[in-house]
Amino acid sequence: MSGAGQTHLFVPGPTNVPEAVRQAMNVPMGDHRAPDFPELTLPLFADVKKVFGNETGRVFLFPSSGTGAWESAIQNTLAPGDRVLMSRFGQFSHLWVDMAERLGLDVVCCDVEWGAGVPLDRFATVLADDPSIKAVFATHNETATGVTSDVAGVRRVLDAAGSDALLFVDGVSSIGSLPFEQEAWGVDLAVAGSQKGFMLPAGLAMLGVSRKALDVAASQKGSARCYFDFTDMIKTNDQGYFPYTPPLPLLYGLRASLRMLLVDEGLDQVFARHHRLAEGVRRGVAALDLSLCAVAPEWHSDTVTAIRTPDGVDGADVCRIGYQQYRTSFGGGLGQVAGKVFRIGHLGDLNEVSCLAALAAAEMSLADAGAKVELGAGVAAAQSWYRSSAAGLASAA
Amino acid sequence: MSGAGQTHLFVPGPTNVPEAVRQAMNVPMGDHRAPDFPELTLPLFADVKKVFGNETGRVFLFPSSGTGAWESAIQNTLAPGDRVLMSRFGQFSHLWVDMAERLGLDVVCCDVEWGAGVPLDRFATVLADDPSIKAVFATHNETATGVTSDVAGVRRVLDAAGSDALLFVDGVSSIGSLPFEQEAWGVDLAVAGSQKGFMLPAGLAMLGVSRKALDVAASQKGSARCYFDFTDMIKTNDQGYFPYTPPLPLLYGLRASLRMLLVDEGLDQVFARHHRLAEGVRRGVAALDLSLCAVAPEWHSDTVTAIRTPDGVDGADVCRIGYQQYRTSFGGGLGQVAGKVFRIGHLGDLNEVSCLAALAAAEMSLADAGAKVELGAGVAAAQSWYRSSAAGLASAA
Amino acid sequence: MSGAGQTHLFVPGPTNVPEAVRQAMNVPMGDHRAPDFPELTLPLFADVKKVFGNETGRVFLFPSSGTGAWESAIQNTLAPGDRVLMSRFGQFSHLWVDMAERLGLDVVCCDVEWGAGVPLDRFATVLADDPSIKAVFATHNETATGVTSDVAGVRRVLDAAGSDALLFVDGVSSIGSLPFEQEAWGVDLAVAGSQKGFMLPAGLAMLGVSRKALDVAASQKGSARCYFDFTDMIKTNDQGYFPYTPPLPLLYGLRASLRMLLVDEGLDQVFARHHRLAEGVRRGVAALDLSLCAVAPEWHSDTVTAIRTPDGVDGADVCRIGYQQYRTSFGGGLGQVAGKVFRIGHLGDLNEVSCLAALAAAEMSLADAGAKVELGAGVAAAQSWYRSSAAGLASAA
Amino acid sequence: MSGAGQTHLFVPGPTNVPEAVRQAMNVPMGDHRAPDFPELTLPLFADVKKVFGNETGRVFLFPSSGTGAWESAIQNTLAPGDRVLMSRFGQFSHLWVDMAERLGLDVVCCDVEWGAGVPLDRFATVLADDPSIKAVFATHNETATGVTSDVAGVRRVLDAAGSDALLFVDGVSSIGSLPFEQEAWGVDLAVAGSQKGFMLPAGLAMLGVSRKALDVAASQKGSARCYFDFTDMIKTNDQGYFPYTPPLPLLYGLRASLRMLLVDEGLDQVFARHHRLAEGVRRGVAALDLSLCAVAPEWHSDTVTAIRTPDGVDGADVCRIGYQQYRTSFGGGLGQVAGKVFRIGHLGDLNEVSCLAALAAAEMSLADAGAKVELGAGVAAAQSWYRSSAAGLASAA
Repeated sequence: MSGAGQTHLFVPGPTNVPEAVRQAMNVPMGDHRAPDFPELTLPLFADVKKVFGNETGRVFLFPSSGTGAWESAIQNTLAPGDRVLMSRFGQFSHLWVDMAERLGLDVVCCDVEWGAGVPLDRFATVLADDPSIKAVFATHNETATGVTSDVAGVRRVLDAAGSDALLFVDGVSSIGSLPFEQEAWGVDLAVAGSQKGFMLPAGLAMLGVSRKALDVAASQKGSARCYFDFTDMIKTNDQGYFPYTPPLPLLYGLRASLRMLLVDEGLDQVFARHHRLAEGVRRGVAALDLSLCAVAPEWHSDTVTAIRTPDGVDGADVCRIGYQQYRTSFGGGLGQVAGKVFRIGHLGDLNEVSCLAALAAAEMSLADAGAKVELGAGVAAAQSWYRSSAAGLASAA
Repeated sequence: MSGAGQTHLFVPGPTNVPEAVRQAMNVPMGDHRAPDFPELTLPLFADVKKVFGNETGRVFLFPSSGTGAWESAIQNTLAPGDRVLMSRFGQFSHLWVDMAERLGLDVVCCDVEWGAGVPLDRFATVLADDPSIKAVFATHNETATGVTSDVAGVRRVLDAAGSDALLFVDGVSSIGSLPFEQEAWGVDLAVAGSQKGFMLPAGLAMLGVSRKALDVAASQKGSARCYFDFTDMIKTNDQGYFPYTPPLPLLYGLRASLRMLLVDEGLDQVFARHHRLAEGVRRGVAALDLSLCAVAPEWHSDTVTAIRTPDGVDGADVCRIGYQQYRTSFGGGLGQVAGKVFRIGHLGDLNEVSCLAALAAAEMSLADAGAKVELGAGVAAAQSWYRSSAAGLASAA
Repeated sequence: MSGAGQTHLFVPGPTNVPEAVRQAMNVPMGDHRAPDFPELTLPLFADVKKVFGNETGRVFLFPSSGTGAWESAIQNTLAPGDRVLMSRFGQFSHLWVDMAERLGLDVVCCDVEWGAGVPLDRFATVLADDPSIKAVFATHNETATGVTSDVAGVRRVLDAAGSDALLFVDGVSSIGSLPFEQEAWGVDLAVAGSQKGFMLPAGLAMLGVSRKALDVAASQKGSARCYFDFTDMIKTNDQGYFPYTPPLPLLYGLRASLRMLLVDEGLDQVFARHHRLAEGVRRGVAALDLSLCAVAPEWHSDTVTAIRTPDGVDGADVCRIGYQQYRTSFGGGLGQVAGKVFRIGHLGDLNEVSCLAALAAAEMSLADAGAKVELGAGVAAAQSWYRSSAAGLASAA
Repeated sequence: MSGAGQTHLFVPGPTNVPEAVRQAMNVPMGDHRAPDFPELTLPLFADVKKVFGNETGRVFLFPSSGTGAWESAIQNTLAPGDRVLMSRFGQFSHLWVDMAERLGLDVVCCDVEWGAGVPLDRFATVLADDPSIKAVFATHNETATGVTSDVAGVRRVLDAAGSDALLFVDGVSSIGSLPFEQEAWGVDLAVAGSQKGFMLPAGLAMLGVSRKALDVAASQKGSARCYFDFTDMIKTNDQGYFPYTPPLPLLYGLRASLRMLLVDEGLDQVFARHHRLAEGVRRGVAALDLSLCAVAPEWHSDTVTAIRTPDGVDGADVCRIGYQQYRTSFGGGLGQVAGKVFRIGHLGDLNEVSCLAALAAAEMSLADAGAKVELGAGVAAAQSWYRSSAAGLASAA
């Protein structure tokens, strides 16, 4: 990239790595079989569970992208031919359906308008009609459209139907940023990745597994697997080790990011901050007379906002101009909404002035791409919100 | 500091360290007397000279802040009792006068309204009247008021007066960011610091010395000195070494920053970028109906803008609010203008979206401090300028 | 760990990360879908191929440990029930057999004494008897016993048998450190990992695939798979992208390590250095009257030396003492040789003084663990070798 | 430098930077005038005082090399023409004498054989004869010869003479590594530098000043000065700030190194470790039949060992060979002992295996330079000592 100054990063992952995490990853290598290695790892397992709201199950940290944890969840608890219920309303829910089919599952897929989320009523109908459903999949936060679904609602539907199907949730762009309660919501397999709310580079997939899912994995054959197998992990993790060489910088970085999430800021504050920042971005978008990809407020995501470009304006142009002219990275439209949206990721280590920079860059990029937007209008609306919602000076001091 | 996300740094030094420089400074220690150490240092000396526009003299790199180079310049070429001509129109020109007096010089000081710069006509008068003036001092860029003076003009005044006085220039917040021509302008002693246009942490003072000043230093006694002495430096520098242990990370970082300035971007582009960014900030300030500390356009600095706060609004409040509420660091008012201004530093590794973030944060901070500003108005004016002055997409590609 | 100073790392992976690589990994995050991202990735793919000696095939970089590449190799080219020929003579060849069985392959396994390597003659016999063998697996360097096998020999055996079975090779602890010629040796699937000869942290598995194996993968069903699928990789890699978020720091670090291997030092020099360092360690071991796990010189590995402890001396004690008393990490015995050996890894970014430090620490740890060794004797033997084999001063200058 | 692997650094400064310090210095820039900056700086001042053993005085942190603190000590408390007592027995005590003379002091200099230290009896005589002595200077640890002097003894001599002269001590290569008690020993001005026992890069000079010296500085004119003036420092330090831009990475690194010295290891343990490591090096040297530059055990330094090379062997060759052939940096001979010695620095973040590496490299370098040494003999002697003096496994666990 030509030019000077920082690149302003507003893709919905990888997110900006906080300085404390970056410092912590600046390590020489060490022996992952050393006697004191468990002093690092055991507390990591415990603290990642806290972020998932997983009390009685366990978490696995796989050296892979989040996609690997999707695969692990399926391989360990389901066998080819098993019937599962999914829904598709964006690129990432689409890819999960694709994976399930490639791994041989018998997928009942509810297609939903891109911009809405998990269709609780249709799920209820399918579950009522088909007692053979072994698992239900929900994408908590569809990163491609900026849509958050009601996972607790899926649990209620399952319970109402008397189903004992496993509940799989993709929490890649939600866990650590949005309220997530694996235990309370009865989520059996919850997937996260290091490069989103955990504010690390990609390379560590996290899989929260309920006690029930662990039992299923232990008692049933599942699919053929080795790399993503639970058994090898359990045997070694219990001693504080891994079945193969783990990525040390990410583990050290995770130590630092967990401290930030759980201690320095606190999860509740993290969630509140994400909501406040997202609300400012949405008000800015509204002030520019643009609409969201999310079709109703109930679907608004607090980690990523997908913005529809006006007719005749290519979302890909907005992204390209942002990157090349203004050194600002936005997310592009994917799949069905390619060219029709651009996305502002506002999750992880961000604050209000960062979001204002995103809006300012978006306004210029939109204008350069041919959109009629009033420069500064989005920024102004967000500024008003941020001022009115700012913590008082006294408490900040 | 509480809160999340990056701190937005807009003090006029230290400036933001580019990633390439930060990488380069991440080094283990080594032997500063190793046989191959000159392979690092000799090109550094040569390249720093290029940034100063110093062709026939030399540069010294002292482990100190820029203040140390002020002192070195005086100690090596002037003796207590020597008569010198200075002017004072901001905190840093004030401090240099103070130093000169403490080091025993006989200072003729022209006091000038804070907001203007070096008074060429008054200098001409003094020089015409007083042939005993041994040195003339000029602050090229007064960081406290955002005022750039005409150094070439000082040279013309000296020449017109037939004076052979040495010309001292404080280029701490100009060299590497604004056009500077030590040789062409006949500057004898030019002072810079690592933490401004060189985009490094503080800790390395740079002193460009003309051939004439080197001769003066070699032939006259000057002041008592040791740490900042030229002779020790010349003897060791010529071999590629230092008279005492140099700060290795800064030398490695300097290697990277010089590559950025001279090769990757090119000095002319660096200067053009600084002008473009500064102009956007100034247009934003004007759109907010605020005035600059600089009293006329001829004094406008392209590295720092000092902004007068409206009556009844304390500049210190703007800074405090920016820092505590919005995680944004502005420069405060110093000395005579304390409380009356706040400053946006826009030098070093910055781009237009960073400057928009600065304006957005400034608008909110001003409003919170009681100023009547139209939120978004400054941002909008700057956006218009940045869009209209942006390089075309074709060339950016 | 208590104490001061660096930890001396001599496990056979992760290896010491060179400073240039460490600098390169110290990056902020960026957009892995940016227009200029292929400028980083496409040359990486090309240069990794050079290290593999892969000319007409391609390489895949999976975000995983090396184990993931083992799995990918199998899943893409073999189906459950396929008959394959393997051999087992150490923990890592053992684990690969275990994986093959868990993924449903019909494994013909030749068990070999731990300390020897791939049994060419027995392979020849099996291949002659059983034309249904679809693939032959060879562990090039068995990290657990310090044994290097003859991969070119396996190719000769295959050719002599007229077999068109695929040749799988585990080169995790050889590629980038020992001569490896994927194309010349007809290796169809070659596995490496970032944390060995590539001198990076773990987290990037590398899989070199021959043209023939790519054709097999494209034309046959293979096993159920998604994360480690070739097709997704090919489609995105060809454009310079990945099917999921890649670990950016490792990619930037790989850029730096490839420059070191291919340009700064050169692969031939890298191989020669590994041989020279290893030879010094072996001479040191011999001078201590200890024997190697490798049962004959033909099996000696130039990347890791497994040393048998004297009767009554527990290899685990040697490791524990080394770590706790002398801040030095050795590899322990695994599987069958647990307690009977300890291992010195000497691959990656090392030099002779590092190896002498390893021997010095080993001598003390052995003595503390009850072995009768003459302190300094191993060091002295290695010093003699290093002196006699050192490049002349003239050439070093 | 050609070759691979780490450079083994055994110069007596800059010393090896511990990983925790290196992490801490990996920071973006910030505002050194921010409201919360004193939260960083005030505890630094307090903790540096603890390392100096300074209870009732204060410490100054100057952005400079240690040489700057030498100059500051003189300028603030002495005026040109003041009579001072010094001794000279190595390059660094020589340079301090040179500085004192250049700054105009009237130096009474006791020249002593290089290899011995401060001559208490001669000091006693001078002080008895000359009541005009205003200050006495002592180099606590002469880095050039590996000689530690008796500072408490100098205090006794002063007291015995009834002198109220100020006591200046150069503790650059002792403070933080050897026991040092500024208050108990009545040291008025104690000089240290960041790049020795504080395990940081160069760039921060530390000056511990007694209450008495502060009073002298406040009440007398001293020498002309500005950069190194106490008054500016006191005024700003008291608020947690500096009179000019401080080097932020070094301040953050200092935070980490003080934690290591005072909390993680503890000063007493640090001192004990330095003694143990040094003793091993000395036993190794003795086993090689080489003699030290220090002429008697009472002068042995625990931070640096200067080793006389045999007749006909040039110490500079040993250093050059170490660096070019074995990637190991030793200190060379300086001044009078140039060519006659080479030096092993063993201060800062080191452990026994590091020292064994130093000895192993020294043996090879000596042999290559023509010395008759028995390879491994020095290592063996040091190993015996380190084994016998190692903390028990129980306590290490």
